[in-house]
Amino acid sequence: MTSTLLTDLYQLTMLQGYWHERMSETAVFELFVRKLPPRRNFLVAAGLEQVIDYLENLAFTHQEIAYLRQSGFFQAKFLDHLATLRFTGDVDAMPEGTVFFPDEPVLRIVAPLPQAQLVETRLINLLQFQTLIASKAARCVLAAPGKSLVDFGLRRAHGYEAGLLAARAAYLAGFSGTSNVLAGMEFSIPIFGTMAHSYIMAHDDELAAFRGFAHSQPHNVVLLIDTYDTLKAVDKVIALAAELAQQDIHIKAVRIDSGDLAALALGVRRKLDGAGLQQIGIFASGDLDEYALQRFYDQKIPIDGFGVGTKLTTSNDAPYLNCAYKLQEYAGIPRRKVSSGKQTWPGRKQVYRRRDSNGILTGDTLTTMDDRQEGEALLQPVMRDGKRIRSPESLETIRKRIAMELDSLPAGLKALDEPSGHVVEISPALLELTRQTDMRLGLN
Amino acid sequence: MTSTLLTDLYQLTMLQGYWHERMSETAVFELFVRKLPPRRNFLVAAGLEQVIDYLENLAFTHQEIAYLRQSGFFQAKFLDHLATLRFTGDVDAMPEGTVFFPDEPVLRIVAPLPQAQLVETRLINLLQFQTLIASKAARCVLAAPGKSLVDFGLRRAHGYEAGLLAARAAYLAGFSGTSNVLAGMEFSIPIFGTMAHSYIMAHDDELAAFRGFAHSQPHNVVLLIDTYDTLKAVDKVIALAAELAQQDIHIKAVRIDSGDLAALALGVRRKLDGAGLQQIGIFASGDLDEYALQRFYDQKIPIDGFGVGTKLTTSNDAPYLNCAYKLQEYAGIPRRKVSSGKQTWPGRKQVYRRRDSNGILTGDTLTTMDDRQEGEALLQPVMRDGKRIRSPESLETIRKRIAMELDSLPAGLKALDEPSGHVVEISPALLELTRQTDMRLGLN
Repeated sequence: MTSTLLTDLYQLTMLQGYWHERMSETAVFELFVRKLPPRRNFLVAAGLEQVIDYLENLAFTHQEIAYLRQSGFFQAKFLDHLATLRFTGDVDAMPEGTVFFPDEPVLRIVAPLPQAQLVETRLINLLQFQTLIASKAARCVLAAPGKSLVDFGLRRAHGYEAGLLAARAAYLAGFSGTSNVLAGMEFSIPIFGTMAHSYIMAHDDELAAFRGFAHSQPHNVVLLIDTYDTLKAVDKVIALAAELAQQDIHIKAVRIDSGDLAALALGVRRKLDGAGLQQIGIFASGDLDEYALQRFYDQKIPIDGFGVGTKLTTSNDAPYLNCAYKLQEYAGIPRRKVSSGKQTWPGRKQVYRRRDSNGILTGDTLTTMDDRQEGEALLQPVMRDGKRIRSPESLETIRKRIAMELDSLPAGLKALDEPSGHVVEISPALLELTRQTDMRLGLN
Repeated sequence: MTSTLLTDLYQLTMLQGYWHERMSETAVFELFVRKLPPRRNFLVAAGLEQVIDYLENLAFTHQEIAYLRQSGFFQAKFLDHLATLRFTGDVDAMPEGTVFFPDEPVLRIVAPLPQAQLVETRLINLLQFQTLIASKAARCVLAAPGKSLVDFGLRRAHGYEAGLLAARAAYLAGFSGTSNVLAGMEFSIPIFGTMAHSYIMAHDDELAAFRGFAHSQPHNVVLLIDTYDTLKAVDKVIALAAELAQQDIHIKAVRIDSGDLAALALGVRRKLDGAGLQQIGIFASGDLDEYALQRFYDQKIPIDGFGVGTKLTTSNDAPYLNCAYKLQEYAGIPRRKVSSGKQTWPGRKQVYRRRDSNGILTGDTLTTMDDRQEGEALLQPVMRDGKRIRSPESLETIRKRIAMELDSLPAGLKALDEPSGHVVEISPALLELTRQTDMRLGLN
């Protein structure tokens, strides 16, 4: 559970200001991405379940209030009031797994101003990270159709929660599972793993290491063959396979973790096939990302599965999203930020998605909530009066949604490296509301 | 506290293998960085305190063992054994705040093989992230000497722990504090914060927003002036300053968060000075990193303090370190990995650092633990028999160490953008041990 103090101090100093000025009317905030990072044509929404959990449990502990009391920033009466604060608002959001584009709200909060303000930091912290990883993972899945992908990135993920939630996001996007055992327990994600180089190195002899491992877990025999000389190690695997077969133990796969993976995989496959061991798979890992996966796939390299690690869980080529959570309406009046380069569309909004007769996405329209446009409305009710209004979606449900979403992308959006030119249309109703808002603000 | 299941499955399957083969002699693992990321000339070690805490508390809960039991990977007797596992080993490490270079071990574990193996994932997860952020933060500090820097990056940090530990790492590196309230409570780091654009936007009038805020917290008046028109907002600040002064309320600073920060700061400074308000500082934020800070500094832009956010807490230009935790010795015999591109130096090692008469770093030598070289030995005893042997260092102690370390860097290493050419010397003793190890492995 998240400490409610995991927030920026300015949220609390603003809350003191709102309290002082008795400003607690209804506020509407929306969370959206301003601009896609380089080399991204779309994003995949993820993390809503953790947001709901956070909002349902929002409360300050006595210890936290005591810390704030001695911090010197706050008046005693304000803190008495803060100690009673709970989230009682409404949330509408795109279901996890929905593909989305810049300027489209993925989540809307309607709540008394102080509540809607306070939750900003953690909402962004939760949604941007899982969205980032689900989007990166979706690119890996698109790059290597039919291959088994496993998240190996816990060690270089940015801490505990990043490792845990990256495993979740990658699984949602179509990964087969994760090496992260805690993610297995917390989310019932399939877990994968066998041995590291240290296992081989701790033995005086590579073959003895292989044999010992196979006997210790006869149903999970995947052997790491690149500690010393990969092709020589395959000869040992072939000899061992015959020996183990007599004890009804079967080697499932070999793993290569360094060197020229494509060349080694071809050599290993040739040797294994030559020995009649077509059933032994090849699993590769080491510095992989969607670009490497696509190269292997295009060149038909005989690798059956991949461990994707650091570059997945850090989203290394785009380690953050230019996202924002902005006030769109307060006390019934639409609001708009016009800071240079950070303009926002005012008011409560909805996104309508259009598809062709084959279900392929053809366009989105961003409009005001009261307007109706052709297509499917993407934002759906999630919480009312501070309570969730439907039970949590299973990871399998979200996985299916993402698989369908990726299927429904036009080829241009699926491309790893080419900008798609996809544009979100702005409705006449939203343009008119923006004009009126600017007029009220004296901006035109 | 960390779940001991926050690890890779292969650690546990290897442990089952070791258990099956009765391999529990003493193993030596060292954690090091193979290669600096682009645009880094050095790294700053951080995260040791969290590692010690993790190792002292290492144990599986009943619930975790129950999960492993139903996972299908493990034998019942092995899990009974695993339930009793604790960390009883020795740890030597560079103190937090030590500057280090590739191939230099920052931490050594000497423990029965299963224990030393199991902890790999979380050790890397903790040390690589804080080291990454402390190193990025140190670059920001070097880029803007004498300026006050504040961590604003919680929202786009990769989850809960990343936000918390990034605040710690940045403070160690010389930041003045953080916006992250939880980091303030957990680590006694100074916290900073006043208002966001939403505060201004929720009011119908910008001046009313400024006034309300100032009255609500008269000792923390920093006003955000870029919501609509930055220079027009300064006029309102000037008018308000006179009004507030009569009530003995003083505006400390204004903040600019968008637009051409340098040009705006110059314009704002001119207006404030023209009104005799030299004492009102200028604080800037928005998409900052060490390169932007250096530009402002070199151009003498009148900005007194900076909020550094996303690019700090994601270390955006280098979001991970090529680091490894490798078996160096088992059962008294030095070990070495020779996988392509991933070769390691065998055996227990020590790093000696040489300085000139002004204390400026002149070179490091990597050698075997038993060898003696000129200079200061960087790895120091931290834990013995699973217990810490000294009390935790205060953050202030580590801050002072980093400040001294940064002071002692030669100019070439301080440069943000030029490769330094700094080379870690390998001692004759270590070269000889490597030769012997390769001979034993039949590699030469």
